[in-house]
Amino acid sequence: MKRVAIIGIGQTPVREHWDRSLRELAVDALWQALDDAQRNEIDGLYVGNMLGGVLSEQEHLGALIADFAGFAGIEAVKVEGACASGAAAFRQGVLAIASGQKKCVAVVGVEKLTEHAGWHSTGALATAADADFETSLGLTFVALNALIKQRFMFEHKLTKEPFAHFPVLAHHNAQYNPHAMFRQPISVEQYLKAKMIAEPINLLDSSPIADGAAAVILAPLDELQKNDRRLVEVLACEVGTDSVALHDRKNLLMLQGVQMSAQRAFKTAGLTPREISFFEPHDAFSIMTALSIEASGFMIATEALKHADNGYFAIDGRLPICTMGGLKGRGHPVGATGIYQVVEATMQLRGEAPSAIQVARPRYGMTQNIGGTGATVVTTILKGKS
Amino acid sequence: MKRVAIIGIGQTPVREHWDRSLRELAVDALWQALDDAQRNEIDGLYVGNMLGGVLSEQEHLGALIADFAGFAGIEAVKVEGACASGAAAFRQGVLAIASGQKKCVAVVGVEKLTEHAGWHSTGALATAADADFETSLGLTFVALNALIKQRFMFEHKLTKEPFAHFPVLAHHNAQYNPHAMFRQPISVEQYLKAKMIAEPINLLDSSPIADGAAAVILAPLDELQKNDRRLVEVLACEVGTDSVALHDRKNLLMLQGVQMSAQRAFKTAGLTPREISFFEPHDAFSIMTALSIEASGFMIATEALKHADNGYFAIDGRLPICTMGGLKGRGHPVGATGIYQVVEATMQLRGEAPSAIQVARPRYGMTQNIGGTGATVVTTILKGKS
Repeated sequence: MKRVAIIGIGQTPVREHWDRSLRELAVDALWQALDDAQRNEIDGLYVGNMLGGVLSEQEHLGALIADFAGFAGIEAVKVEGACASGAAAFRQGVLAIASGQKKCVAVVGVEKLTEHAGWHSTGALATAADADFETSLGLTFVALNALIKQRFMFEHKLTKEPFAHFPVLAHHNAQYNPHAMFRQPISVEQYLKAKMIAEPINLLDSSPIADGAAAVILAPLDELQKNDRRLVEVLACEVGTDSVALHDRKNLLMLQGVQMSAQRAFKTAGLTPREISFFEPHDAFSIMTALSIEASGFMIATEALKHADNGYFAIDGRLPICTMGGLKGRGHPVGATGIYQVVEATMQLRGEAPSAIQVARPRYGMTQNIGGTGATVVTTILKGKS
Repeated sequence: MKRVAIIGIGQTPVREHWDRSLRELAVDALWQALDDAQRNEIDGLYVGNMLGGVLSEQEHLGALIADFAGFAGIEAVKVEGACASGAAAFRQGVLAIASGQKKCVAVVGVEKLTEHAGWHSTGALATAADADFETSLGLTFVALNALIKQRFMFEHKLTKEPFAHFPVLAHHNAQYNPHAMFRQPISVEQYLKAKMIAEPINLLDSSPIADGAAAVILAPLDELQKNDRRLVEVLACEVGTDSVALHDRKNLLMLQGVQMSAQRAFKTAGLTPREISFFEPHDAFSIMTALSIEASGFMIATEALKHADNGYFAIDGRLPICTMGGLKGRGHPVGATGIYQVVEATMQLRGEAPSAIQVARPRYGMTQNIGGTGATVVTTILKGKS
């Protein structure tokens, strides 16, 4: 297997892009990434997208984006793993380079969710749940996460307050990220007063529906100038799965897909959790942040909630998380989210993050993209030069 | 790169499966393939599907099918390339084994199209076209193929009759395939009298909408008993793309995606078209059969139409095609079709086809799965033992 490097990154702002189509967003991010990589050719394209068919009446995004970007003819395909579609496409791109089959590939994550009424987009997102046994009962993703959170609060006799600190942290960091959707800080008081969506999940627990595209260019590390300090190496990118339906899981509070994905990634990278310099979790809901920190092997979830308030997860803390705002602050354009995470981690490892949110001398960055309530999980470990 | 073998195959009948869900069809085919391979473990699952989200409100099929089959935890993902989704997933499965990352993977193609009213399924299929520039004008897939056929008939001053022979041949072979949807022969007279759908494409030019699932198990060839005569090797599996929208193509009658995909496959396999023992084309419409035979390098399209009547493409002819009925006779469950083709070619190469449609001592079989009107094309070349 060849070693794989990220040689270019690109991203559009995460917004309500009412004036731009899927392909326009995707090609914008892709061309930025090619510029950054100083390349004008690719021999493969992997597109991460979940809802192009349901919300934009557009499947076939592999060929469509390849053509619109000026690369008609190359191998191109769409990869889908619900909200983990971006990282699932990244995994296929990494494999294409690692196997020696491809010399330079692009991975683009793209999603448009905001052009429809809320109920329509919420219904579309529910196609990530089990259609026969969950969605058919009217369970949305907020409702499914609310069931998990309710159980967690019951088991650990918790109030709402401890959950405030993750979104407060995410919004704090998002202030400094020009691509983030929500650039205003929020307070614990605002969190406690926020409208309830599905008890016990309130508006400020939840990441927003959004549009956006992000892209990376990958190439074999051994064929590059190795002294380029902007090079970032993909040490591991590993997938784990779990039952889609919550009722099929043995333990509602242990995310087995996260556990398998993270354990595989640590093994492939030859690292342990304590060697990770910063972590980009899939904080679609604050309960997911706590549970995935536990299942990844960093610490148990209740301890994570305690640390959320004491600077442990801040930019200058022991394990910075959501450094560019996470899903909560940057926004969650579903199939693009996994690529935004990789783009942001690459900026951190290159030392190119905005100064207020630049992690000091990071060595290993970890990103984790979760599909559904934890049924598809992709954990990626990246290594910088410094 | 490791050499890749097909060690197991499975398929459901192609039908209107009103009583079975996507996951039931998929797992039926998958378990058959595992039985055939005499394995009970896989370490990766690639699902080819196009319309689960739009028609069954179910995305996230990778994790869903892995779990329902009893493999929750393994790496699993869905791959989409419109009507070429099945073969696009096969390509990822082949790459996973070839790269050395996986020891035994399953590829499952599955689709359910018949539970909706015709207009709804036709609209869903149109998500394979360009939503902004084709579908928005009301162009369905039959209409797009009709434009191509009309141009072809005009350029070559052809009547309808020459096109009769491909569907006649497909239905002839389908008679003997117990998994085929249409097992009755048709005549040239019936073809000429068939109802017009979109001038000049009539009902008997068109493959039917259908439900079904097919599966293959892949493993590294070098780790198997090489003297097993049932082993089939994957010599090549290559993707080519083209503009999704017809108006962006320089030449409406030369399928550039087919050409790139086939040329890459012949190069990888180290073979020429004349060495192929039989060919499974993507005969969604009879015009596609003629054009893809040309773009693959076998002969020009008008010559192919002449040969369609003289036994050249029959089971005992020079280049048998649609040996199990093709899309026209077996049926076209979109995202599953590419895997049905591989399953059927494997049966031929093992000598396990029904006797009336068994090709005599085939050495190299070629399958070709086309997405949209030719924008995503996957060509696979398989080698048998005899």
